[in-house]
Amino acid sequence: MAWEPLYCLVTQRRNEVTDNNYETLDPANWNEMRALAHRMVDDAITYLETVADRPVWQPVPDEVAARFEEPAPRDPSDPEAVYNEFLETIFPYPMGNIHPRFWGWYMGNGTVFGALADFMAAIMNPNLGGGNHVANMVEAQVVDWLKAMFDFPPDASGLLVSGGSMANLVGLAVARNDRAGYNVRELGLRAGGEQMTVYASVEVHSCHQKAVELMGLGSKALRKIPVNPDYTIDLAALESAIAADRVAGCRPICVVGSAGTINTGAIDNMNALADICAREGLWFHVDGAIGAVAVLADNVRSQLAGIERADSIALDLHKWMHVPFEAGCALVRHDAAHREAFALTPAYLEHGTRGLAAGRLWFSEYGLQLTRQFRALKVWMSIKEHGLDRYGRMMARNVEQAHYLGEMIANHPQLELMAPIGLDIVCFRYNPGGLDDAALNDLNKEILMRLQEQGIAAPSYTTLGDRYCLRVAIANHRSTTADFEALVGAVRQLGRSLHGDA
Amino acid sequence: MAWEPLYCLVTQRRNEVTDNNYETLDPANWNEMRALAHRMVDDAITYLETVADRPVWQPVPDEVAARFEEPAPRDPSDPEAVYNEFLETIFPYPMGNIHPRFWGWYMGNGTVFGALADFMAAIMNPNLGGGNHVANMVEAQVVDWLKAMFDFPPDASGLLVSGGSMANLVGLAVARNDRAGYNVRELGLRAGGEQMTVYASVEVHSCHQKAVELMGLGSKALRKIPVNPDYTIDLAALESAIAADRVAGCRPICVVGSAGTINTGAIDNMNALADICAREGLWFHVDGAIGAVAVLADNVRSQLAGIERADSIALDLHKWMHVPFEAGCALVRHDAAHREAFALTPAYLEHGTRGLAAGRLWFSEYGLQLTRQFRALKVWMSIKEHGLDRYGRMMARNVEQAHYLGEMIANHPQLELMAPIGLDIVCFRYNPGGLDDAALNDLNKEILMRLQEQGIAAPSYTTLGDRYCLRVAIANHRSTTADFEALVGAVRQLGRSLHGDA
Repeated sequence: MAWEPLYCLVTQRRNEVTDNNYETLDPANWNEMRALAHRMVDDAITYLETVADRPVWQPVPDEVAARFEEPAPRDPSDPEAVYNEFLETIFPYPMGNIHPRFWGWYMGNGTVFGALADFMAAIMNPNLGGGNHVANMVEAQVVDWLKAMFDFPPDASGLLVSGGSMANLVGLAVARNDRAGYNVRELGLRAGGEQMTVYASVEVHSCHQKAVELMGLGSKALRKIPVNPDYTIDLAALESAIAADRVAGCRPICVVGSAGTINTGAIDNMNALADICAREGLWFHVDGAIGAVAVLADNVRSQLAGIERADSIALDLHKWMHVPFEAGCALVRHDAAHREAFALTPAYLEHGTRGLAAGRLWFSEYGLQLTRQFRALKVWMSIKEHGLDRYGRMMARNVEQAHYLGEMIANHPQLELMAPIGLDIVCFRYNPGGLDDAALNDLNKEILMRLQEQGIAAPSYTTLGDRYCLRVAIANHRSTTADFEALVGAVRQLGRSLHGDA
Repeated sequence: MAWEPLYCLVTQRRNEVTDNNYETLDPANWNEMRALAHRMVDDAITYLETVADRPVWQPVPDEVAARFEEPAPRDPSDPEAVYNEFLETIFPYPMGNIHPRFWGWYMGNGTVFGALADFMAAIMNPNLGGGNHVANMVEAQVVDWLKAMFDFPPDASGLLVSGGSMANLVGLAVARNDRAGYNVRELGLRAGGEQMTVYASVEVHSCHQKAVELMGLGSKALRKIPVNPDYTIDLAALESAIAADRVAGCRPICVVGSAGTINTGAIDNMNALADICAREGLWFHVDGAIGAVAVLADNVRSQLAGIERADSIALDLHKWMHVPFEAGCALVRHDAAHREAFALTPAYLEHGTRGLAAGRLWFSEYGLQLTRQFRALKVWMSIKEHGLDRYGRMMARNVEQAHYLGEMIANHPQLELMAPIGLDIVCFRYNPGGLDDAALNDLNKEILMRLQEQGIAAPSYTTLGDRYCLRVAIANHRSTTADFEALVGAVRQLGRSLHGDA
């Protein structure tokens, strides 16, 4: 190759003059680090292989917690000593979402191969802000795969981000700038004539409120529309709200549809929202953090019909796709609008046609981050490992498990389903009869605490109409039928022992 | 323990009824995955051990690039086959910033142990949005360590984020909400009486423009103040601009000081900026993404005097601290102001006093993300491995190397230093004499392309006063004296061969 003569000279000279004792952050002894690395992967794989044999969760003992008050060390330590401290103080106390009976909030489990991909990404350690190197091609391919899942056109744009909150912020920022009617990037919101307004149901995720607050629209600009009994957005109320805002001199710009609400997994009517947006000239953004990837699942796909008409979609891959945290994606139908919301190219980032700064892939022009890690690798390796259809089967099974749990609840007179089962989310409570809501709230809180404290299972909880519910969100590829039977058995046993036999 | 009887029953039942062929995303064969993992860490460690023997960078061949146009697989693949594809199409084409002669933009190298920490973080896969588990304690400890580095009070707050762009956005968002003079979160910017303005030098990083645009202030609200010949902010011009804005009816809210500019590593006068902010009642934010961590370096510390007076500081740990991407931190002196800018607690996130939802550490209330990965672990393990003083020595050596390179440039009549050396950043060009700036720009562009294309070294470039410069940003724990000698030798040799001997 052309570079060889000069390049070889350089390398030879370096090896001649570099002192072996030169201090770096590289291992002082590569073989010792290699041995430690082998020990670490062995421990890690055993940890996941045996996770079902341990309690779902346990609190951190006070004496361990106290270790995390110590000041930073000034001097180096042997990596093996650091790892031993990790084994003693950190590894035994996971959050629990790797366990087959963790169903709290809405998490994913992660996978072994996904974690290994994260390791390889950190070893290569490229920066996906832009430039001419393969990591950007991997991200572009992953984004193409996700676009294809939603029948987005090939020239749509996309960006891997930390997760749903950031993906939704990107979508809403593009919507704001595209629909403001003037140069909002340059002039700011104070220069605009009308108050811009955004619409979503009362069940919409809180990150949307954070987004409109950050963007300077104000939380009042997020119009929260009532829901139907199944927790989907009330379409007539939405249309009335838009009309009322127009009369009041506001500028409606965007409707957010929820493809799986956080409380109950409800999926808004995507086609109806797309119709309203088309009629009203509004940006149609879909918050699909929870449920959009279930287009892969045979028993969900039809409920998502119309999602392909969205102007932008926010996805999470670290939830139902089980990529290790963090991995989300913002898809935008209109590449130009996406780029116009974020692109900025100072002299030190100018693109070239040759060398490292060449290439068409500058993801930093599609979002807030300039430095971006190689999160695409774990998505790429995970989708290659499992294939899209296996993900679909896993999600479909979680939905079936939710309904199986629902049947068990229906069959036990002391258990009460609190909302329609949406996707894989089941809200229920123990209700032995004869207690008012306040007493039931206290009883169910105690049941949940004991489930968690005894390491049996980890649902989380929510409040629906002032009634406290155990909330079981089953984005878990490790859960089996026996796990749900165990949950029902434990809730009944705890309820009986706390309330006294009826 | 109290949970044992019921818990054991559950586990036993699960093992009895679960079919071994139950499909999950776990390895079909744990031993095969274990063997593959051992192979991967071996390959990874050899890759870094031998990195200096390979070219800094090489372009991706077209036939490899074409592989990344293939659609997503529907069916599973053997993990080993996926890894082999990775070895063939991805691993050989790093960006180059792991190499001792990569000095482009402003990167870090990463470390082996940092990458292993990322692996362990992905195995445990906790969500640091909040809750009662050890990962949040690790993050709190790391934030405490960083606060102590800057003499921030113990009750100051902090948040690990993806990097400098996000850390600066957090700081500016807190500043905006704290200094708006009304409830900007609820009412938005249109309700405010006056245009808020933010001040920084013309050399400030582009992420600040992105931040004010996103926040709805508009890019015009970022007043870019001229710099002195050493590229630090002109303090008199800053004071004039603030005064003029007050006269014009604007509301100055914040000054951004740069602790290391991206072009030349210039450090603004922190004490002078703190004085101006105190006098004018403005929020003092420091963009320390490049240089703030050099408070650890004996030959830089004094230049940063006054940084401890900031209201907020943005840090990058994946640059000069060499934690693998992504790792940044936002520090805020005033916990309440920080929390008030971001906290939001819907029913499904309500905190408890027992169980998983207990604990005082809810980092999601201090930033935009709800789901947050365990990035704290790689920071914790890295600082434990190396100790703060070794980081200080590494940074001090990079600064010395910059000046050594500067001396070599001064000693070669064909080389021209283009700006004062700030921190570890050197801007220079090849100038054999007798050429105008346009011709020198072309010549130096070609020299840079050949340096990169021949795999010799990877500086990046910038433009200072319309003059194209090779820009050498030495945040590299692997660079040795010989590497800089090689750079100078190669630039002179390429210059001579391109321009013809003088």
